[in-house]
Amino acid sequence: MGNQKRTLHLNLFVASMGHHEAAWRHPSSNVEEIIDFSHLQRIAQKAEQAKLDSLFLADRYATSRKAVKYGAISGLEPLTLLSALAVVTKRIGLIATVSTSFNEPFNIARRFASLDHLSQGRAGWNIITSGTDGEAQNFNHDRIPDHHVRYERAHEFLDVTLKLWDSWEADALIADKATGIYADNSKVHELNHRGKHFAVRGPLNLSRSPQGRPLLVQAGSSEDGKAFAAQYAEAIFTAQQSLADAHAFYADVKARAAQHGRSPEQVIILPGICPIIGESEADAKEKEAQLHELTHPAYSLLQLSNRIGFDLSGYPLDGPLPELPATEKIAGHQSRTKLIRDLAEREQLTIRQLLLRLAGGRGHRTIAGTAKQVADELEAWFTQGAADGFNIMPQITNGGLDDFLDQVVPELQRRGLFRTEYTGKTLREHYGLEVPANQFAGSHQYQ
Amino acid sequence: MGNQKRTLHLNLFVASMGHHEAAWRHPSSNVEEIIDFSHLQRIAQKAEQAKLDSLFLADRYATSRKAVKYGAISGLEPLTLLSALAVVTKRIGLIATVSTSFNEPFNIARRFASLDHLSQGRAGWNIITSGTDGEAQNFNHDRIPDHHVRYERAHEFLDVTLKLWDSWEADALIADKATGIYADNSKVHELNHRGKHFAVRGPLNLSRSPQGRPLLVQAGSSEDGKAFAAQYAEAIFTAQQSLADAHAFYADVKARAAQHGRSPEQVIILPGICPIIGESEADAKEKEAQLHELTHPAYSLLQLSNRIGFDLSGYPLDGPLPELPATEKIAGHQSRTKLIRDLAEREQLTIRQLLLRLAGGRGHRTIAGTAKQVADELEAWFTQGAADGFNIMPQITNGGLDDFLDQVVPELQRRGLFRTEYTGKTLREHYGLEVPANQFAGSHQYQ
Ligand SMILES: Cc1cc2nc3c(=O)[nH]c(=O)nc-3n(C[C@H](O)[C@H](O)[C@H](O)COP(=O)(O)O)c2cc1C
Ligand SMILES: Cc1cc2nc3c(=O)[nH]c(=O)nc-3n(C[C@H](O)[C@H](O)[C@H](O)COP(=O)(O)O)c2cc1C
Repeated sequence: MGNQKRTLHLNLFVASMGHHEAAWRHPSSNVEEIIDFSHLQRIAQKAEQAKLDSLFLADRYATSRKAVKYGAISGLEPLTLLSALAVVTKRIGLIATVSTSFNEPFNIARRFASLDHLSQGRAGWNIITSGTDGEAQNFNHDRIPDHHVRYERAHEFLDVTLKLWDSWEADALIADKATGIYADNSKVHELNHRGKHFAVRGPLNLSRSPQGRPLLVQAGSSEDGKAFAAQYAEAIFTAQQSLADAHAFYADVKARAAQHGRSPEQVIILPGICPIIGESEADAKEKEAQLHELTHPAYSLLQLSNRIGFDLSGYPLDGPLPELPATEKIAGHQSRTKLIRDLAEREQLTIRQLLLRLAGGRGHRTIAGTAKQVADELEAWFTQGAADGFNIMPQITNGGLDDFLDQVVPELQRRGLFRTEYTGKTLREHYGLEVPANQFAGSHQYQ
Repeated sequence: MGNQKRTLHLNLFVASMGHHEAAWRHPSSNVEEIIDFSHLQRIAQKAEQAKLDSLFLADRYATSRKAVKYGAISGLEPLTLLSALAVVTKRIGLIATVSTSFNEPFNIARRFASLDHLSQGRAGWNIITSGTDGEAQNFNHDRIPDHHVRYERAHEFLDVTLKLWDSWEADALIADKATGIYADNSKVHELNHRGKHFAVRGPLNLSRSPQGRPLLVQAGSSEDGKAFAAQYAEAIFTAQQSLADAHAFYADVKARAAQHGRSPEQVIILPGICPIIGESEADAKEKEAQLHELTHPAYSLLQLSNRIGFDLSGYPLDGPLPELPATEKIAGHQSRTKLIRDLAEREQLTIRQLLLRLAGGRGHRTIAGTAKQVADELEAWFTQGAADGFNIMPQITNGGLDDFLDQVVPELQRRGLFRTEYTGKTLREHYGLEVPANQFAGSHQYQ
């Protein structure tokens, strides 16, 4: 960390209307704008004015007739939207979620390389394995493939995409008009990968992109997920309910990264935080209560059932959460299921109470308070070894995102905890991450 | 056509440096701009100023170390680039090539619906089945699947994507804040598709897009290809060397469409044309010769071998084309292979001569002449039942695209053959195509 003070990183998790499940019903939300590009453009540009590191778009590969009744469609496909946002922003990073379970590595390597070229080095990939039967059923499966199998495929997927991104060395494209030589093809490499899930020859049909490869982000916190993250992830999104849990997670992942021979500083840990800001704490709580009022228990229950892969519809709302399968037996989202179960147990919540605890951020830490209280909390987590920065998930976008950017960010800047200007140009530079070496460099193939 | 004079349609087939295989070596080309967004943005905006119907991006899913030596990488992935171009244009249509052989229908339905939302109704899909072993080898195959199998998969792919686009009726999304009802889910439909190649439950996780579905374009002219086009395509790209061939193709496809109960006017036929324009015919021919000078026979031969799926490297350049397999035996690109063989035969070309005949447009009709000569030719094809418009493929972009837009388009406008202002807003409106009915409308599913 040298002489320079360590500063924190801020990623905006974009949700068109907000992360609270009833945000769209709030008077300040404009439902005409749910998938409206100019609305999303305003969000992106505002986050860039505040010098945030990056924008992030989550993704799911399904919805259901039941779920759409009360909400929950995904909006524009993330890479499509980020390609458009790349043109109307200059500095902020652009992180898209893509699942390794329902895609082919060649297509995904190419799309991220394309976004990285288009944005001049601002692409990032939130690598997920997906976790619901509904998604699997849109891709030729009856049920979601086993947790372990999904992560096995994810490992091979990464192996292939990393090679594809390295298949062009940085100086391979010469385009020499005089000789007519377009590429120095001793610097263009085949992979000839033949594995259990994929066979890919390569090279990629696109020259090396500014960052070499997108920033690799990961968001699974199960055992398999942490092992995967320790090997590949340069930034980690995680849901943590308390400073103590976050601290333990932080130490665990950094240690695992070190075991892979990686520098712990090259793995940025970003817990989610769902703020709702008021002039006083009471005012903030009042705002939160107002959003809670607008929830539909039937919808909240459906969302929760889907998230934990367990149908709760038969259980009384005012009773406790039933016993769930052991974590390692869960085919779907293991770490989130565990977090939710622990939360219900620790706070002795009925299902109804649990639904409200989850309404603001689906298991991410929610906080209703003044800008100063929020800044204090971020500072505490950051300085006490629980976070390198945060995944900001405003419970409501109109008004709520503004409160965070206009009040909390300046407060963090005053405390010297956050940049006041971009110093780098690429996403990797914003996060202080090195440009990875090319695994093929020097290994000459001749034709 | 009623009282209104029938006018022609113009699609710009975008090639960063131009369609001539040596375009990038021309003095007017700037190789720094090969995948540069601002360059592509200028092309798109200039085409829109000229009121063209649409832009089109081709795509291949592979390159090779041999090919990149002299050229031929694909540039940015088409849907990525068109998403970015959607933001810097307002009216022009945006047509992306996507293969049904190496993708999943759910992902593709969603990406086109996203582009259609983003562009407010300007998305089009050039549906291909791909045709080379090199591409197949990036997607877990050793060889390209059989022609017939690819088209069988393409049919099922279309069946599924059309249902996904229809899975949301236009008025399903209500987002009623007062009741908290987000969608009227009696108007959101599952597909429950279970076929030979795909099993997809649906619904799509995105509401119905402005055009309902993208404009469906098709570019295979084999028997399988024409059958597919007659059933699904609303616009058809085709390579035709002579007015007589184009006329026969036109009549054939329109008749096939009618057999499917479709109105022949709802199938727009767009032969490719690769113009090179001079102040005099001699000047144009001189420009063409200058481009031909810059070709590399070794590269041209490789491209041709790849295109016809037959390795020509052992054959003398000054000898004839060897006998190729019968058309129906070709696994790869049948119609293009046939066109090339017929051309070599008819004109009694040596391989070397054939390479130059193909250098300007890979088998599409090239024309070197004055703006008036080009306009005359377009008018003749259009009025004599060989075309409803054209796929414009300038041999060189810098200078050459400008010549076409600045000289030929105004000439066509003076003749009353081309619009002087956009009258519609969507891509479908530019081509005078109806909005297709929703196949699920009225079929209520209850939960
Ligand atoms: C900030 C954050 C964002 C996430 N985004 C997604 C997402 O977009 N799509 C998704 O399927 N899962 C998402 N997840 C969930 C995890 O990726 C999910 O738990 C993963 O499928 C497997 O997790 P596991 O390793 O805990 O079982 C996200 C998690 C976090 C913390
Ligand atoms: C204008 C035009 C554009 C085309 N674009 C592509 C393309 O982008 N990618 C591709 O693989 N084939 C492309 N093709 C070729 C046909 O789609 C190809 O011939 C198809 O794979 C099968 O053709 P067939 O039915 O003639 O065998 C294009 C053809 C034409 C006429």
